[in-house]
Amino acid sequence: MSIAPRNHRIRLARRPQGEPVAEDFTHDVVDVPSPEPGQVLLRTRYLSLDPYVRGRMSDAKSYAAPMEVGDVIVGGTVSEVVESAADGFSPGDTVLSYGGWQEYSVEPVGHLRRLDPSAAPITTALGVLGMPGFTAYAGLLAIGKPQPGETVAVAAATGPVGSAVGQIAKIHGARAIGIAGGERKIARLRELGFDAALDHREPDLAGRLAEAAPEGIDVYFENVGGPVWDAVLPQLNEFARVPVCGLAANYNATSLPEGPDRSGQLMGSVLAKSLTLRGFIQREFAPTMFEDFLRDMTGWVASGQVQHTEDITEGLDRAPDAFVGMLGGKNFGKAIIQVS
Amino acid sequence: MSIAPRNHRIRLARRPQGEPVAEDFTHDVVDVPSPEPGQVLLRTRYLSLDPYVRGRMSDAKSYAAPMEVGDVIVGGTVSEVVESAADGFSPGDTVLSYGGWQEYSVEPVGHLRRLDPSAAPITTALGVLGMPGFTAYAGLLAIGKPQPGETVAVAAATGPVGSAVGQIAKIHGARAIGIAGGERKIARLRELGFDAALDHREPDLAGRLAEAAPEGIDVYFENVGGPVWDAVLPQLNEFARVPVCGLAANYNATSLPEGPDRSGQLMGSVLAKSLTLRGFIQREFAPTMFEDFLRDMTGWVASGQVQHTEDITEGLDRAPDAFVGMLGGKNFGKAIIQVS
Repeated sequence: MSIAPRNHRIRLARRPQGEPVAEDFTHDVVDVPSPEPGQVLLRTRYLSLDPYVRGRMSDAKSYAAPMEVGDVIVGGTVSEVVESAADGFSPGDTVLSYGGWQEYSVEPVGHLRRLDPSAAPITTALGVLGMPGFTAYAGLLAIGKPQPGETVAVAAATGPVGSAVGQIAKIHGARAIGIAGGERKIARLRELGFDAALDHREPDLAGRLAEAAPEGIDVYFENVGGPVWDAVLPQLNEFARVPVCGLAANYNATSLPEGPDRSGQLMGSVLAKSLTLRGFIQREFAPTMFEDFLRDMTGWVASGQVQHTEDITEGLDRAPDAFVGMLGGKNFGKAIIQVS
Repeated sequence: MSIAPRNHRIRLARRPQGEPVAEDFTHDVVDVPSPEPGQVLLRTRYLSLDPYVRGRMSDAKSYAAPMEVGDVIVGGTVSEVVESAADGFSPGDTVLSYGGWQEYSVEPVGHLRRLDPSAAPITTALGVLGMPGFTAYAGLLAIGKPQPGETVAVAAATGPVGSAVGQIAKIHGARAIGIAGGERKIARLRELGFDAALDHREPDLAGRLAEAAPEGIDVYFENVGGPVWDAVLPQLNEFARVPVCGLAANYNATSLPEGPDRSGQLMGSVLAKSLTLRGFIQREFAPTMFEDFLRDMTGWVASGQVQHTEDITEGLDRAPDAFVGMLGGKNFGKAIIQVS
């Protein structure tokens, strides 16, 4: 086996102000590190691009500690073991790891998950069978609790989380309304079996949403925020549930929007309609639900009940551009970088 | 038995703009109605004043249909049966009813609850053993779910809901922080056994709250909104629960506050801390919890584990002033009008 002698990395050069730009990232090439006992040296094959990483580039308090300036940008990876100093892992093994934006990483084996390339394409471990798929599964079933005949709405609905939310809702007997931007995504939502597909770039989203949900919305899976949330809120039914796993529309904001202040009005809606708003990170549910998720979702993917789309860009160098594009909704399906 | 020949009523003259004024109410005197089969004629003894009634005076959509202009103002009452056209009720019986702001009412017996004056003072059916007490019990236990050692905060803490919230939290092994306005109320909170008592009229509520809750707040029982909520939100812990049963600070508002718009920031806090915000009206929990409530709370009141205070004003004529005073926090304990 030939080990490339040098490791290309992309690090945080400074904290972005608003939308990240090229100068916020710095590229360097360093020696490939060696694994210590209990560790393995991994070569990154695929890198996952996820919206939450934008939050970790800022120093605002969030659910995860921010990155420090100078850190390698974080991210989930599918990697191959090239050198092992740990029992149970051998060169050639494929694992799900958290190597970040670099070609090589050294990691302790405790948090690695071994992947079986014969069971499913290994990239699915970053999407439909990984963190985004589990986010959809856990948030929808543990918080949203859709009942047969109820209406579930989700935005960024062709993304890896949103598309899973809609399809799982259908499997559970609910109606699914998907919201996305552009004709191609709307067509995709129809292929996926969504009962209604609404383009947020067209005028009067609120009115079209009211038409698409004549009996109101019982579950809104919130991963976007912003104007879509404004259009959804008036359509929520009494006792509606709102799992909140992301607010991509706000991630690049540099200041609070102009007034009036609608925060009290939002609390008023929570009260008037007995709403449940519940923020969550998927890891909260991993101990109790991840096994069920893997079993159910693997079955649904195999049977075609859940379809997924990947948007793969070749080359680590292109990660910053692809990441910014994803934050702006330019990806079509799960955004992945093929690193090697 | 002598039946007074005339019924003094207070009706909604027009919808209040902001804080209600005398001209929003109209007094009249009409004939006492007669009960039809299945109904009873009731004489009002005590009338409950509750903040939610302000919401029903407006025509904004809320959890209850608004009153119409001309309607008798609604309210819970403890009443005496003076004439019965229904099986099972006899003159002299004391009942919990919903007679509103008038001296006599005719009501179907289906929704009356018979009271035993020998078991507890009958006014408690409007407070600690009635709707406010049940609001505290159900919201705190079903949504707040305080665990031993956790910290529970509540505002309007000498009011009938807030004082029950704090005392039930203590019974369940949690720390209780009460927020109220003025020295007399703060002293009362100390008597009730709250671990900390904060006056929202003093400066730097946020700083004093941080000191009083060095390990953060796990449950905030929201019945006020406004600046107290602004001070509490930064102190909430990851996975904190916020039962929302009222927003008294907003009830008299006539327009949205000036910006910036903090509604997106609020959603960001829900996400960053995996918060649960849950609006509720106590009636949601009545089928499953009211029996337990009556048993538990009757025991706690009898043993002195839960104390309560009543603020009784004599004379139906004084209901409008007492009501406006209550909305402004001038009452000391459960606000009740002694009608006859």
